[in-house]
Amino acid sequence: MNPLTSSNPYFAGLFADPEITALFEGAATADAFLAYEMALTHAAAEVGQIDTGLAQRALAAMLDFTPDVAGLQSDLSADGMAVPGYVRQLKAHVGAECAAAVHPGATSQDLIDTAQALALRAANEIYISRLTTLIEALRNLEETHGDNRLMGRTRMQAALPISAGHRISSWISPLVRHTSRLEILRPEVEALQFGGPVGDGQRSQPHAAAMADHMGKALGLRAPERCWHTERDSLVTYAGWLSALTGSLGKFGQDVCLMVQQGVDALAQAGGGSSSAMAHKQNPVIAEMLVTLSRYNAGQVALMHQASVHEQERSGAMWTLEWMVLPAMMTCTGAALRLATRQVQAITRIGEPPTAR
Amino acid sequence: MNPLTSSNPYFAGLFADPEITALFEGAATADAFLAYEMALTHAAAEVGQIDTGLAQRALAAMLDFTPDVAGLQSDLSADGMAVPGYVRQLKAHVGAECAAAVHPGATSQDLIDTAQALALRAANEIYISRLTTLIEALRNLEETHGDNRLMGRTRMQAALPISAGHRISSWISPLVRHTSRLEILRPEVEALQFGGPVGDGQRSQPHAAAMADHMGKALGLRAPERCWHTERDSLVTYAGWLSALTGSLGKFGQDVCLMVQQGVDALAQAGGGSSSAMAHKQNPVIAEMLVTLSRYNAGQVALMHQASVHEQERSGAMWTLEWMVLPAMMTCTGAALRLATRQVQAITRIGEPPTAR
Amino acid sequence: MNPLTSSNPYFAGLFADPEITALFEGAATADAFLAYEMALTHAAAEVGQIDTGLAQRALAAMLDFTPDVAGLQSDLSADGMAVPGYVRQLKAHVGAECAAAVHPGATSQDLIDTAQALALRAANEIYISRLTTLIEALRNLEETHGDNRLMGRTRMQAALPISAGHRISSWISPLVRHTSRLEILRPEVEALQFGGPVGDGQRSQPHAAAMADHMGKALGLRAPERCWHTERDSLVTYAGWLSALTGSLGKFGQDVCLMVQQGVDALAQAGGGSSSAMAHKQNPVIAEMLVTLSRYNAGQVALMHQASVHEQERSGAMWTLEWMVLPAMMTCTGAALRLATRQVQAITRIGEPPTAR
Amino acid sequence: MNPLTSSNPYFAGLFADPEITALFEGAATADAFLAYEMALTHAAAEVGQIDTGLAQRALAAMLDFTPDVAGLQSDLSADGMAVPGYVRQLKAHVGAECAAAVHPGATSQDLIDTAQALALRAANEIYISRLTTLIEALRNLEETHGDNRLMGRTRMQAALPISAGHRISSWISPLVRHTSRLEILRPEVEALQFGGPVGDGQRSQPHAAAMADHMGKALGLRAPERCWHTERDSLVTYAGWLSALTGSLGKFGQDVCLMVQQGVDALAQAGGGSSSAMAHKQNPVIAEMLVTLSRYNAGQVALMHQASVHEQERSGAMWTLEWMVLPAMMTCTGAALRLATRQVQAITRIGEPPTAR
Repeated sequence: MNPLTSSNPYFAGLFADPEITALFEGAATADAFLAYEMALTHAAAEVGQIDTGLAQRALAAMLDFTPDVAGLQSDLSADGMAVPGYVRQLKAHVGAECAAAVHPGATSQDLIDTAQALALRAANEIYISRLTTLIEALRNLEETHGDNRLMGRTRMQAALPISAGHRISSWISPLVRHTSRLEILRPEVEALQFGGPVGDGQRSQPHAAAMADHMGKALGLRAPERCWHTERDSLVTYAGWLSALTGSLGKFGQDVCLMVQQGVDALAQAGGGSSSAMAHKQNPVIAEMLVTLSRYNAGQVALMHQASVHEQERSGAMWTLEWMVLPAMMTCTGAALRLATRQVQAITRIGEPPTAR
Repeated sequence: MNPLTSSNPYFAGLFADPEITALFEGAATADAFLAYEMALTHAAAEVGQIDTGLAQRALAAMLDFTPDVAGLQSDLSADGMAVPGYVRQLKAHVGAECAAAVHPGATSQDLIDTAQALALRAANEIYISRLTTLIEALRNLEETHGDNRLMGRTRMQAALPISAGHRISSWISPLVRHTSRLEILRPEVEALQFGGPVGDGQRSQPHAAAMADHMGKALGLRAPERCWHTERDSLVTYAGWLSALTGSLGKFGQDVCLMVQQGVDALAQAGGGSSSAMAHKQNPVIAEMLVTLSRYNAGQVALMHQASVHEQERSGAMWTLEWMVLPAMMTCTGAALRLATRQVQAITRIGEPPTAR
Repeated sequence: MNPLTSSNPYFAGLFADPEITALFEGAATADAFLAYEMALTHAAAEVGQIDTGLAQRALAAMLDFTPDVAGLQSDLSADGMAVPGYVRQLKAHVGAECAAAVHPGATSQDLIDTAQALALRAANEIYISRLTTLIEALRNLEETHGDNRLMGRTRMQAALPISAGHRISSWISPLVRHTSRLEILRPEVEALQFGGPVGDGQRSQPHAAAMADHMGKALGLRAPERCWHTERDSLVTYAGWLSALTGSLGKFGQDVCLMVQQGVDALAQAGGGSSSAMAHKQNPVIAEMLVTLSRYNAGQVALMHQASVHEQERSGAMWTLEWMVLPAMMTCTGAALRLATRQVQAITRIGEPPTAR
Repeated sequence: MNPLTSSNPYFAGLFADPEITALFEGAATADAFLAYEMALTHAAAEVGQIDTGLAQRALAAMLDFTPDVAGLQSDLSADGMAVPGYVRQLKAHVGAECAAAVHPGATSQDLIDTAQALALRAANEIYISRLTTLIEALRNLEETHGDNRLMGRTRMQAALPISAGHRISSWISPLVRHTSRLEILRPEVEALQFGGPVGDGQRSQPHAAAMADHMGKALGLRAPERCWHTERDSLVTYAGWLSALTGSLGKFGQDVCLMVQQGVDALAQAGGGSSSAMAHKQNPVIAEMLVTLSRYNAGQVALMHQASVHEQERSGAMWTLEWMVLPAMMTCTGAALRLATRQVQAITRIGEPPTAR
C-alpha cells in the first residue's frame, strides 16, 4: 500500500512520480550494469590490463546480452544482491575464452553504487528543471499578487498586516538556495565507484586510477581519487538535501492549508479534493501531500545517517538499508516538486488586493 | 528500487513478502471496500435507517460490482484518496433509485481505516504463525546445541564462557513476549471504523452504535465505542510492536554476523552469499538483512509517532503519512520473521560441543 | 541550551519537570546503587553464598557510605560508566575483610539498569497521578462545555457542526487507554536486573534465582526469570508508551493552536504568551509546547528502537544510547502531562453555547 | 540522566564537552542578547531611526545592565521564551525616557536566532580546530602504521589482505570533506537575524537593510538579504553536517570495536575501560561512544528536518523544537571530535608490521 511504488490502484497514483520511479526500475539497472561492464572491459584494455583483441571480442558479445532476470532471483536471494549472478550470466554469455575480460578487478558494490550514481545524475537534471519551473511559477504569483495585503501570523496568531509578496518570498528564497546547493553537490554524488573487492583497486594496480578515469569519461561520471565503498558522507549529505528541499515545500504546503481555512480565507484555489460524504468540501489535498512528503523524507533522512556506520571495507547491512531509503526519498522529492508547481498554479487569490483595504 | 515493493528484479525479491504484500494490493482493497459497503447497507436496513427492500436491491446489485480502477485514477489524484470516486462508481452501478442505500452516513476514512484493519487482522495471523515456527526452530537449536560452550562477549570483548543455550535463550524470550503482546493488541487494532463525516456518527443517530455492532460482526472486527478517526494511539502502539519485534530479530542477526567472523568462529552455517569478486566468501546475508530490517522499522516507527498529531476531526496529511509507513513496516516484519527462521535453520554449529572443551 | 536539563535561565524553565528530573539526578542514583548493593549482600547471605556475619559487618559499614563523586569522574571517563569506580570505593569503604561481601556476582549493568527501573517506578506513579488529574480536568470541561456547538473540521476545512463534547472526548479517550496500557506495562519495566558479568548468573548459581527473589522484594521490583541485559523489548515498548502519550497530547495542543486562531475563534483561554514586539498578542505557548514535546518524543522513540540491537551479552554503545534518550523522553512526558492540565484549566470557552445558535 | 547536560556525576562527565556546553549557557545568552540590543540601538541611531543622543544615553545605561534571571522565570513560563521579559527589564533599566531607544523594530526571534548564530560561530571555530587536530593524528597514524598488513573485511567476512593505510585513509577522507563543507556552510549559518515582528522589517523601513548591515558588522555575522525567521533550510543543512560528521566518526569507532575483538586482534590500544566484575576486561569505551554519538545525532537530525515546517511568519512549536535538538547535536559533535582524537592517540598497533608477514 506504499503509495510511492505499490501497484494498488486505490493509492498508487497519489504520490507517483513515473519519471523518477523509472530511474530505479529493472530496465535502468540493466542498462547501467551493462554500461559499467563495457566501460570496465574497455578501460582494462586501454591500460593494458587485458588483451585488446580479447576485450573487443568480449565487448562485441556483451552488446547483445540480455540478462535472464528470472534466473537472477535465486542468486539474489542467496547472495543478498544480484551482481554475482549477473556476472556469472554475463561471463557465460561471452563464453569461456572471453570471460577473463569481463568484470576484471571489480566487485558488486562497484556496479550497484555506479548504477545508483547514474540514477542520481538523471534525477538531478529532473530536479533542477522542476525547481526552475516552480521558482518561475512562484515568481509569477509574486508579480501578480505580491502587492496584496495579508494578515501576518506568528505563533498561529494574527500579528501585523504584511504584503502577500513577503510570504511568497519566504517560499521562493529557500528554493533558490536549494538549487545552488544541488549544483555544488552534483559532482560529489555523480561519481563512479571502482574499488574492487576490498576498495583499494589492488587487482587493477598500478592502473586503477587510469581505468577509473576512462570509465568516468565513458559513463559521464566524476572519477574520484579513492573509492567510496564505506565513505557515505556525500550520499548522506545528498539525502539531507532531498529532505531539506521537501521540508521547504512542506512549509509552503502547511501555509496553504492554514490559509484556505474558512475564517482565515487568505488564499483561494481552483480544484480541491471532494469528499465522499460532504458535497461542499474543497480539501487542500495537494498542500496536505506536501506536508506528508516533507514529514516522510524527514524521517527517512535519519536512516541515511544511521547507515553511515559502514563497518570495515563493506557493510552489507547498512548498504542494503540505503537501497530501501534513498530511492523512496528521491521519488518523494520528485513528487513534491511536481505537486508544488501544481499547487502554485491552482492559486487564484492570495490575500486581498490593495484596493480592497 | 525499494526492495520491499519495487518490481526491479535486481532488488525486488530480496526482502519481498508476497503474503503480506498481497494484503495491501488492489484486490484486497477492492474486497474490503465492497465488504464494508455491503455490511453498511445491511446494517442501515437492520436498524431501520433505510428501507429493507431498497437495501436488498442495492445489495443484490453490489454483488457484481467491479470498480473501474483506471477511472479511479483521476479522482484519486484530485481527491487525495480513492473513496469519493469509488462511491460515485458504486452509486452509479446500483442505479439512481438504490443510490440512497449506498454509503449511508459513512465517510472515506471509514472505508480506508477498516480496509487497513482487515489487512492487519490477516497479517497478525501470519505473524502469530511465523512467530510460533520461529520460536520452535530456536527451541530446537537450543535443545541440540544449547549445552555447547561459547565465549560470552560483553562490550565486544571476550568476557567469560557461557553455554550456547544462554545466548539462544536471549533470542527466544523476547519473541515469547512479543507473541503475548500481540494477543493483547489484536482487539485494539482489528477494529471497525464507522464515524461518518465528522466522526460522531451524526447521520446515523440514534442507531450509529447498533449499526457498528452489526458491521463489526459481519466483518469480523471489534466495534469500538467511539470512532477513532483521530485517535491513532492503538495504531501507533501497533507500529511500535512491529518495530520492537524486528529489533529483537536484528539483535539475533547482529549476533550471527559477529559469530561467523573468521577469528571468532562461534557459529557455522550452510549457504551464505557469494561474491562477484571473491570465490571464498560466505557472506552472512540473511543475518545482515535482519539488521537492515530492524534499522528500517526503527526509523519508520518515528513517523507513525509523528503522525499522531491528527488535527481536529480528520488530518489529511498525517493520515496519508500512515499509508506510506505502516504497510512498509508490516512487510518488513513479515520478511524478517521469515528470514529469521531461514537463518536459524541454516545454523550447523553454534559454539563448541562440551566434549571439545 | 536543551531546555529539559540545561541550567540556562533563558530557556531552562520552559519544559522543566523538577519531579521527573530529580529521579535521574546524582542523589537518586547514589540511593539506588547503595540500595542495590545492600540488597545484594543481604540476599547472598540469605542463600548462603557469603557468610552471614561477614555480610552483616559489610551491611553495617555500607550504611554510612558516601561515594566520592569527584573521584568517580576519572573512572567514569576511563570505564565508560561509573560503577567500576563506585564498587572500588565501596569495597575500600567496607574494608579488605568485608570486600568479598560487596557486589558478589553482580556487574555494572545490574546496578545501572536497576537504578533506572527504580526511577521508572517512581515516574510511573507520577504519570498515573497526572493522567488522573488531566482526565478529570478534561471531563470537567466536557461537562461544562460539552453541549456547545463547534464547527467540525476535516482536512483543515469546515465540515459539519459538532458538539464541543465530541472533540473533547477525542482528547480524553486515548488518555484512558494510555492509563490502562501503563498498568500492564509497569510490571514489565519495574524489574530487577541481576545477571552478573555475562547475564547467566554463573557466579551466583545455583542461587541466582533465589537471590533475585530476595532482591526484588527488598527493592520493590519484579524479579524476572532471566536477566534482560540484552533483551530491551520491554524498555522499547515503554518508550513507545511515552511517545504515544505525548503524541495524544500533541494532538490536543495542535487542536488548541488551530482553535484560537483569529477567524476560527473556537476556543478562548486565559493567559497566553506576550510578545516582545506586539502588545496585542496572546500566543498559545502551552499548546505549542505540547506539539513540540510530542514531536521531540516521536523522534527519540526511534533511537530506543535503534538501540534494540544490543550485541552478544552486553552492548556498550547501544546501552549508553538508552541513557541519552530515555530520561529525556521521560522528562518530556512529565512536562507534557503537567502542561496539558494547565492548558485545560486555561480554557474559558470552547465552541459556542447552544443558546447562541 | 542525559549525559550531555545533566549534572548527575554518575553519568554527566561521559560525553561532556564543556567548551561547547558553555556556548549555550546563561552567560553566553546574556552576552549575546545585550550585544544584540546594543548593536540594534546603535544601528537605529546610525540610520536616523532614533535620536543619536537618546541612543547614546540608552547605550551608556545598557553597559551595566545585568538581567534579573530569577525574575525572568515567570515570564519565560508565561511567554514561552525569555525575550519579552528580558526586554521589559532592559527598558526599565534604561529608564522611561530611553526606553524608546531599546529593541526598536526587533522581535524575540531576532535575539534568540542571533544568539544561536553567535554560538554556532564559536562552535565552528572549535570544530575546525578539532578536525585539524584529528586529521593530523590520523595522518600520523597512517605514516607510522600505514604499511602494516590487515585482513580486509567485507560484509563482516575476511576478504583479502589490505594495507592498514587503506583503512586509515577511509577514516581521513570524509573528515577532509567535512572540513571543506563547513567552510562553505559557515557564512550561511553565521548570520544575523533581523526581521522584526513579522519578518519584513516594516518598523525599520526604509532602513532595515542598512541597519542589518551595521549590526552584522558589529556582531561579526553575515547580514542576509532577508530575515530567515521561517526559512530554516540553512540550519537544517547545518544539522545534517553535524550528523554526517559524527556518522563518519561512528564508522571509525565501529571499526575499532570490531578490530579489538579477541580473535580478530587487528588493533591494540592503551587504556580501555575496566569492568566491575571482570578484571581482565579492556572495554573499547571510547570507540563505543563514537558509535553511540553517531546514532544519537542520526536520530536528532530527523527532528531538525521535521522542524522545517515553520508555519506562516513564525512557528512557536517548531522553533522551540530546534532549541531542544540543535544544541544537543552540537555538544555531541564536539564530544565526538574530542573522543576521536583520544581514540587515535590510544592506538598502539594496527595490523601487522610488513616484516611479520
